Amino acid sequence: MAGSKFAYVKNFELPDPLLPGTFMVLRVDGHAFHRLSEEHNFTKPNDERALQLMDHAARDVMNEFKDIVLAFGESDEFSFLFRKSTTLYNRRQAKILTTVTSIFTSSYVYNWPKYLPNTPLKYPPSFDGRIVLYPSAKDVRNYFSWRQADTHINNLYNTVFWALVLQGGETTTQAHATLRGTVSSTKHEMMFSRFGINYTDISPRYRKGSILVRMEIPPEPEADVEPASGKISEVIESGADPTSKPKTAKKNVKIRTFIELLHCDLIGDEFWEARPHLLSE
Amino acid sequence: MAGSKFAYVKNFELPDPLLPGTFMVLRVDGHAFHRLSEEHNFTKPNDERALQLMDHAARDVMNEFKDIVLAFGESDEFSFLFRKSTTLYNRRQAKILTTVTSIFTSSYVYNWPKYLPNTPLKYPPSFDGRIVLYPSAKDVRNYFSWRQADTHINNLYNTVFWALVLQGGETTTQAHATLRGTVSSTKHEMMFSRFGINYTDISPRYRKGSILVRMEIPPEPEADVEPASGKISEVIESGADPTSKPKTAKKNVKIRTFIELLHCDLIGDEFWEARPHLLSE
Amino acid sequence: MAGSKFAYVKNFELPDPLLPGTFMVLRVDGHAFHRLSEEHNFTKPNDERALQLMDHAARDVMNEFKDIVLAFGESDEFSFLFRKSTTLYNRRQAKILTTVTSIFTSSYVYNWPKYLPNTPLKYPPSFDGRIVLYPSAKDVRNYFSWRQADTHINNLYNTVFWALVLQGGETTTQAHATLRGTVSSTKHEMMFSRFGINYTDISPRYRKGSILVRMEIPPEPEADVEPASGKISEVIESGADPTSKPKTAKKNVKIRTFIELLHCDLIGDEFWEARPHLLSE
Amino acid sequence: MAGSKFAYVKNFELPDPLLPGTFMVLRVDGHAFHRLSEEHNFTKPNDERALQLMDHAARDVMNEFKDIVLAFGESDEFSFLFRKSTTLYNRRQAKILTTVTSIFTSSYVYNWPKYLPNTPLKYPPSFDGRIVLYPSAKDVRNYFSWRQADTHINNLYNTVFWALVLQGGETTTQAHATLRGTVSSTKHEMMFSRFGINYTDISPRYRKGSILVRMEIPPEPEADVEPASGKISEVIESGADPTSKPKTAKKNVKIRTFIELLHCDLIGDEFWEARPHLLSE
Repeated sequence: MAGSKFAYVKNFELPDPLLPGTFMVLRVDGHAFHRLSEEHNFTKPNDERALQLMDHAARDVMNEFKDIVLAFGESDEFSFLFRKSTTLYNRRQAKILTTVTSIFTSSYVYNWPKYLPNTPLKYPPSFDGRIVLYPSAKDVRNYFSWRQADTHINNLYNTVFWALVLQGGETTTQAHATLRGTVSSTKHEMMFSRFGINYTDISPRYRKGSILVRMEIPPEPEADVEPASGKISEVIESGADPTSKPKTAKKNVKIRTFIELLHCDLIGDEFWEARPHLLSE
Repeated sequence: MAGSKFAYVKNFELPDPLLPGTFMVLRVDGHAFHRLSEEHNFTKPNDERALQLMDHAARDVMNEFKDIVLAFGESDEFSFLFRKSTTLYNRRQAKILTTVTSIFTSSYVYNWPKYLPNTPLKYPPSFDGRIVLYPSAKDVRNYFSWRQADTHINNLYNTVFWALVLQGGETTTQAHATLRGTVSSTKHEMMFSRFGINYTDISPRYRKGSILVRMEIPPEPEADVEPASGKISEVIESGADPTSKPKTAKKNVKIRTFIELLHCDLIGDEFWEARPHLLSE
Repeated sequence: MAGSKFAYVKNFELPDPLLPGTFMVLRVDGHAFHRLSEEHNFTKPNDERALQLMDHAARDVMNEFKDIVLAFGESDEFSFLFRKSTTLYNRRQAKILTTVTSIFTSSYVYNWPKYLPNTPLKYPPSFDGRIVLYPSAKDVRNYFSWRQADTHINNLYNTVFWALVLQGGETTTQAHATLRGTVSSTKHEMMFSRFGINYTDISPRYRKGSILVRMEIPPEPEADVEPASGKISEVIESGADPTSKPKTAKKNVKIRTFIELLHCDLIGDEFWEARPHLLSE
Repeated sequence: MAGSKFAYVKNFELPDPLLPGTFMVLRVDGHAFHRLSEEHNFTKPNDERALQLMDHAARDVMNEFKDIVLAFGESDEFSFLFRKSTTLYNRRQAKILTTVTSIFTSSYVYNWPKYLPNTPLKYPPSFDGRIVLYPSAKDVRNYFSWRQADTHINNLYNTVFWALVLQGGETTTQAHATLRGTVSSTKHEMMFSRFGINYTDISPRYRKGSILVRMEIPPEPEADVEPASGKISEVIESGADPTSKPKTAKKNVKIRTFIELLHCDLIGDEFWEARPHLLSE
């Protein structure tokens, strides 16, 4: 066959499997989103439409990959947690990483007009992505706590900062100077005394970020389970060891799932204790 | 600082530098494009608008990354060649891979309406990506030869196949059966005798694929070099060793470049001999 | 400095850290030990002297690296388990892997005359090595169970096989034929009825392999803890997170340890429940 | 089969192939050889017996692996260059790395009494090892130049240093102080004027290190090629592409080789131009 003498170049493709039995966390981050938010006049300190668009893109990723059980988003980033036992694409790193990043990007651009109908996109925005492996459930919890703590720190800062600028009449340089070295309580005090903002009244979306969690619908006694809204997904669960391929698993059970959007605390135990399936196999 | 007790989770991010002194080839591939082409009624065997859209996305990638010197596209895939000495993102694999895949995807969705104005995109399309390292110029040439030979094989097959279906009235099953086991010359003969198609008359875009090549504009004697069309890019060239960071290079020369679109043969020597800079440092 | 223009070649050395928070198992395997055992007339089916030499080499490795808490050996192989939180050589793979393999090899050759004083070594024997990461304690237990089950299977086969050859007068070809397809109970029956061997009377070393376990000596109330035999080691324990370097840990406690040799079952729970420190941090 | 329920743990072993088409350089380094040389009273500044022992161990490695075409040693280290097209162990990194390091170690311990017959080895010495990939012949040359430049720098320093100590009566602290900041010419001058040492009279082994090079014996017209000394090896050469397995190569030619020990310059062109096979496929 023509071309066969060149086909040896395929031998330079090296395998890149991710270690079995570990949790994959894949995070996408906006590329140069500072500029994107400037050029499209995002509302400060938070633009709800832009955040809802991020949630939409994340939901599209989760609809495509049933082995993603949890996602957390803030600002221009989203982190996805895969089931520990996932065998998606045989755990090939580049394949998983690029496909998720691409779907997220595509959905973001595709759905932009739904969320910012009066703000035409001026150029194509993009994201980078990375996968980090976590061996234990504790490390996974700490990862998500790290991101939510980051959300809190950034949002607290940004809320006072933009109050100083938009309501207090400071320049951005002055506002940064005003806030330099202030601790959390000082910022709360400043918001309340100068601008009448009670931080806890601020939308939980801004304070806690967005949590998308895949919930399982308890299997019903056979009959009349109807697909309902089309938003219900099916996940194949197997009882097999974490490294086996789905093919070899004997008893698969179809579990119907849906995706819930939350803006709650996930640093404490409550969130995880109420959803033990997230960190099980 | 709040959150600092969780920050140790960053230690699980492992370095992933690509071997210096090697050519990176990054290929993006359409994810489920068979379905995409069906749902949006792409013309068979080739849809020129869709191919032009691919070229546009590839050009956007090359405009973003000046160290990409060559790209080759066919069907739903595009391959990008980086200069051997590139230090883009310190050669971090995931960063390069995801950023390029994301920009390509974003541009594809963003520019869709320009090329298929009467065909609204029904859902967000996506791509996967991979990076393969080639140590030698010879292997790089063979890689691109492999892809162009593949273009030829596929296009020849698809051209006869769709002639049999669209003009010859065969079902797709019949057409596959008709072609089973036929060699190249038989297909040429069949096209000509039954459908009056002279294969060499077919658009070189379909027969040879799309080649985007970064060309250098010879530096002019100082003055009045004008930016002209805005399509001219600048690349920093350094004479340093292949592993050094740009910072340490002493004599940088700004080289102005533009991107040329070709549909010519790249398997023979001529293409490469005329553009020796593609495979130099 | 002379040579500095060549030093850039160091940039081709890529980092190879092992994922934090996982158990490392490092296994060394004899290279062509079939020939070695032939050339040096090892006793069949087991040569106690050669096995003791393996144990000695493994013990030397454990004396060098306090973060190895357990080792299991059979035939010409030995597996070493590192504490999950080890930061030995910053978890650099090649460094750990080659140093352990080299020390094991060196000790084996160095101590050969102690165990086989009348059998001069005819040529230098060697070993290969590999590191496998296990994310969970359960997988680590199953790894060691896998090796001990292998010990049992091989020893049972070899014991009957060599009884057939050495006592039964069969050729090795005949003996393999006699055993083909036999199950475990048949082999036990054959040993007992034809050769009077009660398998459970065979030395536990041959049936169970060699287990080297690092045991901690409870810290005594300050004073007069004497080094005793010189076989007691000290390990620095820290309570820090699994990815921190020892330097940053604040409260280090020196724990004195010694290495115990066992030939017992490690597939059941008892072994592990009695030594919970093996699978803790 | 007993044990099969544990065998899934093998799935945690990940592939580690080295990029095809690149030169592998494997370097072994003595582990704590400062102490080894102290404890065994190595002659200062160079111990010829210990260096010959290193050469012997390197030669044993090259006799085992015919795809090693060159080795360079100095002090307690040795670097091995594999043919670019080697498919040894399918280019699996850990397998190649540990086997070579182990054979080197084993030979060093095994042959110690031949070179230092009156100095019993007090404990087992060890080495670590690493593999670095070089994509181009130029980088390979620069790697070896880097090591030989290092040999020169170290030997020049050590020669004056020990002359100051052993002949000049300085303490080691004084000698270091005397040499601080001196350039090469000053050291030459100091050696000659104070101790009558003409540096160029010093053994080339110390000044240039040890080069072991595999030389090919031109194939003779069939008949009477006699094996001679047993030191002649045979290498299978194939004309196939660099990624093919030996099995698939059609025309193999047995090439007889021997290993030559040199202490000459390899920084200049002469060495390489006289031995073009070292850097060919």
